[in-house]
Formats: sequence, structure tokens, C-alpha cells
Amino acid sequence: MNGNETFDQLAKFTRETALLESISYTLEWDERTYMPTGGRAYRADQVTYLAGMAHRRRTDPQMGDWIAELQQSELAGDRHSDAGATIHRIGRDFERACKLPQDLVEGLSRATVVGQQRWEDARKADDFAAFLPALEEIIRLKIESAERLADGGNLYDALLDEYEEDAKSEQLTEVFRDLRSELVPLVAAIRDSKTQPNTDLLRRNFPVDAQRAFCKQVAEAVGFDFTRGRLDETSHPFCTSLGPSDCRILTRYDAHWFPGALYGTLHEAGHGIYDQGLRGDQFGLPPGTYVSLGIHESQSRMWENMVGRSLPFCQHFYGELQRTFPEALSDVDVNAFHFAVNTVEPSLIRVEADEVTYNLHIIIRFELEQALISGDLKPKDLPEAWNQKYQEYLGITPPNNADGVLQDVHWSAGLLGYFPTYTLGNLIAAQLFDAAGEALGDLDAMFAKGEFSPLRTWLNENIHRHGCVYSPNELVQRATGKPLSSQPLVGYLKQKFGALYNL
Amino acid sequence: MNGNETFDQLAKFTRETALLESISYTLEWDERTYMPTGGRAYRADQVTYLAGMAHRRRTDPQMGDWIAELQQSELAGDRHSDAGATIHRIGRDFERACKLPQDLVEGLSRATVVGQQRWEDARKADDFAAFLPALEEIIRLKIESAERLADGGNLYDALLDEYEEDAKSEQLTEVFRDLRSELVPLVAAIRDSKTQPNTDLLRRNFPVDAQRAFCKQVAEAVGFDFTRGRLDETSHPFCTSLGPSDCRILTRYDAHWFPGALYGTLHEAGHGIYDQGLRGDQFGLPPGTYVSLGIHESQSRMWENMVGRSLPFCQHFYGELQRTFPEALSDVDVNAFHFAVNTVEPSLIRVEADEVTYNLHIIIRFELEQALISGDLKPKDLPEAWNQKYQEYLGITPPNNADGVLQDVHWSAGLLGYFPTYTLGNLIAAQLFDAAGEALGDLDAMFAKGEFSPLRTWLNENIHRHGCVYSPNELVQRATGKPLSSQPLVGYLKQKFGALYNL
Repeated sequence: MNGNETFDQLAKFTRETALLESISYTLEWDERTYMPTGGRAYRADQVTYLAGMAHRRRTDPQMGDWIAELQQSELAGDRHSDAGATIHRIGRDFERACKLPQDLVEGLSRATVVGQQRWEDARKADDFAAFLPALEEIIRLKIESAERLADGGNLYDALLDEYEEDAKSEQLTEVFRDLRSELVPLVAAIRDSKTQPNTDLLRRNFPVDAQRAFCKQVAEAVGFDFTRGRLDETSHPFCTSLGPSDCRILTRYDAHWFPGALYGTLHEAGHGIYDQGLRGDQFGLPPGTYVSLGIHESQSRMWENMVGRSLPFCQHFYGELQRTFPEALSDVDVNAFHFAVNTVEPSLIRVEADEVTYNLHIIIRFELEQALISGDLKPKDLPEAWNQKYQEYLGITPPNNADGVLQDVHWSAGLLGYFPTYTLGNLIAAQLFDAAGEALGDLDAMFAKGEFSPLRTWLNENIHRHGCVYSPNELVQRATGKPLSSQPLVGYLKQKFGALYNL
Repeated sequence: MNGNETFDQLAKFTRETALLESISYTLEWDERTYMPTGGRAYRADQVTYLAGMAHRRRTDPQMGDWIAELQQSELAGDRHSDAGATIHRIGRDFERACKLPQDLVEGLSRATVVGQQRWEDARKADDFAAFLPALEEIIRLKIESAERLADGGNLYDALLDEYEEDAKSEQLTEVFRDLRSELVPLVAAIRDSKTQPNTDLLRRNFPVDAQRAFCKQVAEAVGFDFTRGRLDETSHPFCTSLGPSDCRILTRYDAHWFPGALYGTLHEAGHGIYDQGLRGDQFGLPPGTYVSLGIHESQSRMWENMVGRSLPFCQHFYGELQRTFPEALSDVDVNAFHFAVNTVEPSLIRVEADEVTYNLHIIIRFELEQALISGDLKPKDLPEAWNQKYQEYLGITPPNNADGVLQDVHWSAGLLGYFPTYTLGNLIAAQLFDAAGEALGDLDAMFAKGEFSPLRTWLNENIHRHGCVYSPNELVQRATGKPLSSQPLVGYLKQKFGALYNL
């Protein structure tokens, strides 16, 4: 058999595995939108069954044979061809999967199922001690996983690698340190400014039905394709693709907090536009798959913040906004609205944080995770360490653990090494946005006229359509001509908030 | 290995197959409710893949070995025990499934996914020619299936057998002839009566949002459990169970035709109440599975017609109805409303047909299907044959194919041999309703007070909880003390409509 036949077999097998996984995503989407509560137990059986089937396929020894043969073939020669990227990425994922023994995978699966239940109860009861044993078990198993994956290298990097191919903690530490040194004084200057927004106007009455229609209109305007996707409601918003032309985004509505739905929709629409820009003919294979969580997040954050929270965006939609919400907005001018949706204020909860303070929340988690994995920090000492860092970086101390160390689901689900990709997303978004502006000209003038397709097309050509053919760092270098740096984000934040807060 | 161990293996394997099928049903529900049009092609791939997997399992030689061993064991001795019924039914299904080769099953699955999509477009565009190639392929594959299943016997019976264990076309032809001989003069007498309802009042303005809320309330009142189910919208209403406690019913709304949504909801709720009354611990096995389409339809038709179109039912809900639709109903008294929802009039659309003419629609389809399968009628000649029969049996000719031969989804989904079960359902419903009345006393007095649980409980005990432990004919005999006959339906129709139309 020649390399091409082997490649076709590997590709067919991998596409079928992806098809099974896409079925799971459909079941999960239904569970989080429409499923009646009675359906829970059987739905868990269905998803578990499919997950087991997919995992057996992802670690099938036949996969190893195909990969070993193809890695020696000419097809693997060009890492940046469709075939080369496919062999590289599938080989990498297979190697990772095989380093983890079955009992460790199952142990972690059990520990995180228990962990998420304990976490949910502990958060409600504000009782960290009730969560601690489950957390200790998860950390122990994650350290063991990292040891097996790292082959003597950096343990935290081995975890990061699952979410972000190029990320290394040494580099992240440096970039995050630069970022922090710029953000802390910016936050202080904003706090001390005499110019402050009126955030209360966003808490007026915004009827939910009107929000639904408006959010859909905005998602459509920026380019989310509703013939190949949907917008629904859920308690914890997300974006999931159930097929090459079936992307589901979800948001939530609060009649007395309008930015939640609007910017939540734009955020998920940004994720959706990435998925919709992937090559459908390569669905299930690396060239048709998103490359990393950091790149994915760069798309959501760009549409949410750099586009959606810009003045020209607000200006373009403001007439429609006032007509849609006359009770809330008829006496509010667009500048007041724009300032309000850009309020900067140190706060306790990451998911509600503004653009400036958000990254400080991430840096805190990044530092704590590294200490947990190295063993320098024991899980039992987390609340104290958490609160100290919040005081040091944000100037506030959580009054309880529910709004402190217990706020995020991630650790209870075994997702260590995941948080840094949020800030990577912000850094990449700013750097791409600068490069898009240089390439396309006056983006602000386009947004003011409701022209979002030039930016979307630029992202499609420079990011989306490449899938995993380039690594995250390669993609950034190719699209912007520079390696990843904190300067574009710092420059963007200083300029935008300097003007708003009259610094 | 003893019989019990073999039985446990067979049961576990069968439950897993049912789990895969339940996943398919979830994908199909999504396709018909919320999926964007872009999702169609990949959804077809997903469903086809699962169908292939389920069929391989249903025909796995290991199944044959288990069944052969169990058919000789003591467990098979009592056909009406859980184990005996399981062995009987799985054995019967296995024998059928093994007659169909894998490529035929997969071809049919793909043809019907495509067929339903083409049908939907063709119906919208009133373009039979656009549907014809897909239909020809489906008919071709169904004839091939019938030939393989029939072993030289009647081809149409081989298809009927899939939906109705006890049914044979020869008997059906006879029963339907008896029925027609009673219905035709009844329709004529009604047409000539001087007492006629005012149907126009049902075409007044019934706002859709209010219909949605009211229909949900009625479904809940008759006993559909919304903690274990949902009511959604679709173009062609149906009921599907995605798990033992997750039943989805669907209806459609027309602001100027209220009975469509109300009686559509009651019909699907009747199906749903049957599914919700099956034994959850036996989900996926014959004792927890509905026994036949005729029995299933008897439940939907009873709640829709014998309950929902009764005067006491209308009286019970009428205050709420007038409050919900003041514009349409404030000047209408309950008797006028009740007469209007029982209007008898030859019409084009089966699902909108009244109780008297409905069975004539079925007889037309039964005759056309037999001709299609025997080859006496070519698919391309269907529109003409359809229109001729409508003229002959109902005295009307469809003005277009959208309201004629394209009105039903069934053939596009490969469901040939399915239509006769609708009339069987009407026959069984009338016979069961008589028996329930004899057992429970004055049902009308109960309905007038909104008491629907005695009837529901009687059906649960006499029909639902038995699953496939008894055959359809056995269930009817046990529940009513008599074999199936057309007399109860004829008696019910003559009495009800004789009184309404003053015959």
C-alpha cells in the first residue's frame, strides 16, 4: 500500500470519529437548551457511550500504524500542506493520548465528574473545605498526567500544550509580566479619574423579547450566517459546531443588564464566524479544525470588544437601539451609552470583568496554577493565596470564597492550563486588529457605516481558512509580520481608555 | 452458560442498540425543529452512519446465536412474560432485519433523508417533478425490500408487517370496504342536512402566542408530563421519544385556523401519553416499547377526537378559551364552537379532515400504495391517480399538488404500509373508548369537570404498561373482551354526528 492509500484510510477513520463527536455535541447542545429535566439520566448514558466509542477510536493501535507509516512518507514532508498538517496534528494528538494509561484517564474522568458536583454544592454553600478533597484528587491526577506527558520537561507546559500548541510558560510569564506592569497603573489612573461613566443606565428596563430580536440582528450584521447557524438561550453561553455548516451560538438575557446579552452574543458570534470560516470540505480533519483556544478566543474577543465596544459600532446601531429600547435609551446619547459599556472597575468575577482588568484575573489564575502543579502551593492554601493576589493586583479582597476561589468551574473539571488562553486571545486579537487596520485602512469609518465584511474577510483569509495548517504562532507571524507581543493590546487599551477617562 | 446469562447479554446488547437509535431520533427531532438549513447534508451523514451501526447490531450473527439458544430455553415458554415477549419480539425483528442486506438499508436511509429534504422544498414550491426522482428511488428500494421480506408472499403485507404485527391487506381491504359502505351514506346525509355549523368562526383571529400557551395548558391538563417532555413547533407534527423520560411532541400554529394547533396538540399529546406510560425500566426492550402503530394511533385519536372534540371537554375549557381569545370567541357560545370543531366536509388535507371523511383519505392512500408496490402505478403518474381518487371518493379535486399528492411526508420518508394504521387506530380507539366507559362509568361527566386521569389510568393499565407483551389483537381482546370490529367506530360516528346534524 502506498502513502496515499494509507492517508485516505487515516482520513476516513478520523472523519468518522469526528462525526461521532459531532453527534455528542448535538446531544450536549440539546441538553443545554431544550431538553426536559427528565431526560438527564438517559442523556448522560448516550453521551458516555459515544465518548467511549470516540476515545477507543482516537487511541486505536491501527491509528498508530498508519501514522508511523505516513510520518516516513513524502506526504509528511511539507508540514504546511493539507496532508502534512493532517499527519502532524493527528500524530501529535495520538502520541499525547497514548501517553496516558487508561486507568489514569478513567480516574480523571471520575474525579472531575465528582469534582464538578462538589464544586457546584461548595460554591452554593460558600464552603471551600467541602470542595477541597475532590480538588486535591484532581490536582494529584493532573500532576501525574503532566509527568507522563512532559517526558522530563516542564510539567505545566505539558498541560498548556493540550489547549495551545505553541504556548510555553516561560514565554507566557514574560508576556504576562509586561502586561501586568502596564495594566496596574492604568487601572489606578482610571480609578482616580474625575471622568466616570453612568453605568446605571444599562440596568434600566430592556425587555427580553426586544433584546432577542436585536441581538440576532447584530449577529447577522457582523456576518454570522443564520442559514448555517442559530442563536439560542442557555444559562452558560457557548458556541458549538454540529457540522461544517451548522454552528450554534448561545447567549442569555437579563432584562436589567443589557450588555450581558449584547456582548455575549457578539462574543459567541465571533467564535461562530471562525467556525463558519473553516473549510467545510476538511471538516473533522486538521485543515478544517480550529487551531487553538487562544486563536479561537482572539476571534470572539475582537468582535465583542474591538468591534462591538467601539464608538463607531455604537453609533451605527444607535438609532435602531433607541427605537428598540425607547424606555431605557431615549434620554441617553450615544457617547454616554458607549462610555457605559466600557466602564472599567476592579471587580471580583472574571466573566463580568471589563477589558482592562480582565487580564489581571487571568494572570492570577495562571500564577496559582503553576504553583499548584509545581507543588509550591497546596490546594488547601488556595483561598488565602487567591485573596492575597486579588488584593495585590486588583485592590480588592473577595468577601467570601463563592465570589473568590470557587467562582470558576475550570479546576473542578480538570481544566488546568486553560485560563492563559483567554489572555492569549486578547493579545492576539489586538495584534490581528492592528494588522487588519494596516491592511484595510480606516476600520472605524467602515464600522460607522455598518461595513463589517472587510474585517471578516481579512480574518477569513488570514486565520479561519488555514485551520491547523499553521501553528498558532505561525499564524500570528504570517498575518501580522511579527511574533506575538503585548504591545498591541497595551497600546489599544491605553489609547481607548485614555480617551474615555480623559487621562 | 444458562439461559439467564444469555438473556442478560441479549438484553444489554439490545438496549445499547436502542440507545444508538434514540440518538438518531434526537438528531431527527433537531432537524425538524431548530437545525439551520445548512446543516442538512452533514446531518444526513450522521443519521446514515448511526442507522448503519444500528442495523449491523440488529443483524449481528451473535444476536442470532443468542436468540436461537433462548428460543429453546424455558424463558421463551411464556410468550406473555417479560422475557418471553422479549425473545419473541427480538426474534421476529431479527428475522426481518436479516432479510435486508446492509447496502439496501443504508441506501434507503440515505434516500429517505434526501427524500424528506426534497419533499419539503417541492411541497413549498408546488413542484412534484422536483420530488419525483427522489420518490422513484425510494419506491424502487421499498419494492426491493418487500421482495426480500415477503419470501414469495404478498409484497404489501411484507411492508405492513413492519408497523402492525397482526395486519394483512386482505383483511384490511374487507374492513375498509365495510367502513366505506357506512361512511359514504353518512357523509351524504350530513351534506344534505339543513343543520350546518358555522365553521368560519374558527378562521377568526387567534393570536399565535396565545395559542401556544393554551395548547400547552391543554396538553398538561390531559396528562402529558412536561417534566418528561416538551411541546415544539414544526411543519409536519409528530411525537418522538428520545429516552424513557424525554418525549417530544410537536404541533403547528395558524393564526386563522385554531383547530389545527389545538387538536394537533391533543393528537400528539395522546401519542406522548402512551410513550410516557411505557415502563421506563424496560426502555429499549420489547416490554417497554409501543406494540404497533395502530395501537399508538388509537391513543392519539382518542384524546384528539373522543375526548377533545366532545361537548363536555369543550364546556370544561370554554371559559378559559373565551378569556384567551376574546376577539374571536366572545360572541360564540360553546355549542356553536363544539359544532364548528366537528364540521364534516369533504376536504383536501388528511390531517385537517374531520372524523367521518378522514378514513376515506386513508383508503385512497392504501389503494395507491398497493398499486405502487405491485408496479401497477408508476410514481410519475401519482398526481393524476391521486386526483382521480379524490374526485371519486370525496367529490373534490386538488387544485395543486402541494395540497394533493405532496401533502404528506410519509412516502418521502419511505413509510409505505404505514397509512392503514391510521384507520386501524380509529377503529381501535372507538372500541377501547366504549370499554373504558363501561369500566369507569360516565366519562362525559368526568370530562366536564376536567377529570381526565381516570381514562388515562385505565389506558395506562390496559394498554401502555404492557408494551409488546401482548400483540395488538391480543391487547384489544383483553381490554375490550372482543376482537377488533368496525362496529364501535361506526356506532360512535352515527350517534355523534346524527345528533349534531339532526339526522
